[in-house]
Amino acid sequence: MIAVRDKVRFVETDLMGVVHHSNYLRWFEMARVEYLRAANVLLPELIAQGIVFPIVEVQCKYRQSAHFDEIIRVEATLSEFSRAKLCFSYRVLRDADDVLLAEGATQNVFTNMDGRIIRLPQLYYDRINALRQAEDGGVA
Amino acid sequence: MIAVRDKVRFVETDLMGVVHHSNYLRWFEMARVEYLRAANVLLPELIAQGIVFPIVEVQCKYRQSAHFDEIIRVEATLSEFSRAKLCFSYRVLRDADDVLLAEGATQNVFTNMDGRIIRLPQLYYDRINALRQAEDGGVA
Amino acid sequence: MIAVRDKVRFVETDLMGVVHHSNYLRWFEMARVEYLRAANVLLPELIAQGIVFPIVEVQCKYRQSAHFDEIIRVEATLSEFSRAKLCFSYRVLRDADDVLLAEGATQNVFTNMDGRIIRLPQLYYDRINALRQAEDGGVA
Amino acid sequence: MIAVRDKVRFVETDLMGVVHHSNYLRWFEMARVEYLRAANVLLPELIAQGIVFPIVEVQCKYRQSAHFDEIIRVEATLSEFSRAKLCFSYRVLRDADDVLLAEGATQNVFTNMDGRIIRLPQLYYDRINALRQAEDGGVA
Repeated sequence: MIAVRDKVRFVETDLMGVVHHSNYLRWFEMARVEYLRAANVLLPELIAQGIVFPIVEVQCKYRQSAHFDEIIRVEATLSEFSRAKLCFSYRVLRDADDVLLAEGATQNVFTNMDGRIIRLPQLYYDRINALRQAEDGGVA
Repeated sequence: MIAVRDKVRFVETDLMGVVHHSNYLRWFEMARVEYLRAANVLLPELIAQGIVFPIVEVQCKYRQSAHFDEIIRVEATLSEFSRAKLCFSYRVLRDADDVLLAEGATQNVFTNMDGRIIRLPQLYYDRINALRQAEDGGVA
Repeated sequence: MIAVRDKVRFVETDLMGVVHHSNYLRWFEMARVEYLRAANVLLPELIAQGIVFPIVEVQCKYRQSAHFDEIIRVEATLSEFSRAKLCFSYRVLRDADDVLLAEGATQNVFTNMDGRIIRLPQLYYDRINALRQAEDGGVA
Repeated sequence: MIAVRDKVRFVETDLMGVVHHSNYLRWFEMARVEYLRAANVLLPELIAQGIVFPIVEVQCKYRQSAHFDEIIRVEATLSEFSRAKLCFSYRVLRDADDVLLAEGATQNVFTNMDGRIIRLPQLYYDRINALRQAEDGGVA
């Protein structure tokens, strides 16, 4: 599990006075990017090789509102992984008191630039798998 | 079912060259707003009475990418409705050829300004219900 | 001058209850895209030829707030044009009563994919110029 | 001068592969908020008292593109200040090598909830002024 912290931006609020629900998907993305970086999988490097990884499914349950200027913490956990897909689950917490704000999940697949499904090259698979196993080991 | 059309904005794309997945939630919202307007339920009027309607759950499956400058059509269907919650399902289509780009669903609840769950006032319930029944009648 | 209309989205508002100022730049862009389309200059076609047209300067003066669900009208006028740059001025109006909400201007240059300044190919220059002269003719 | 650092989000890019120009205004805002916080002027506190501070003018010159995953540093400097208005200038730099990416400026005024111009209460004026003078002192 990788956690990132960020401060809620003014522009992320809407006229209800709280963070607009679409922004949580952008926060999930920030955590997902950091998870992959921790595995030494850099998105620009993949893209340069013609590998993209579109989101094919997302879900989010909203528990409490996030407010302007609060520090939020986004936790990303790799929940399922193969050379065909990458699934993460997420939790968004108010960092000050660990109140759960939202929970969600995403599924990515790997495709070439034409949108055709491909298998993730072994090199990158191994890197992500190594991080995953290190995490599992940390739990044991 | 209510359908709205819009043209994909340049800013809605990302460096993969297609629409960023978070924007579909914003398109769902546009269709949801129009559905409520068709029922003569105007969000500013509700807010002025201290009634808000936060999203508590969203999900989306992405089928094909949307691209800059394409006309998309977003269809919103009321799938479940009571004085406690409002559930919509959505389809996003490329308007030119009716290709399905994404499908999703949202659930809203009604709360007061303090975030406490309330029941939707009868007046608004009746208006939404009238539209729903007119739609069902149209199907029969 | 080309005008586009759009309805203010819920997500475009912020906790002050009005449209966030950054969104006007996105509205300018919508009008700029339509102006170029009217001249038969399509951005994806230029990009496919390795021509991009980054914004190098923007300014905006905000006169009145735009609100959720209002219809806004964005007018784009080509104010300066050469094979080296493209300058537009904009007005954003509340469509219902023509109240001026904002005025602004942008400058684009033409570059290749490496960010090096280039001159717009004659073909596209002529198309934009033809539209411009037709507009000037309409005024005379 | 107050500086904030942030990492460019994937969603902030567009199909040209670089950060969309509208996002720089959102970065300016992050730095402006932190400047005011450093002066102990918290926006939610002002809003709770019926004081809002809309942007009335913004400008930005773009020098170099920002890219996904780069660390950017946004510097905000109070350039003009009275009980009637608040002007900031900004610089956005790529943090790794201090390359200037953009420069800009904003002007805010103070209004009540009805949009009528007001004067900033003395308490807040003094706080901002104290920070400003401390900064000037630091330069001398």
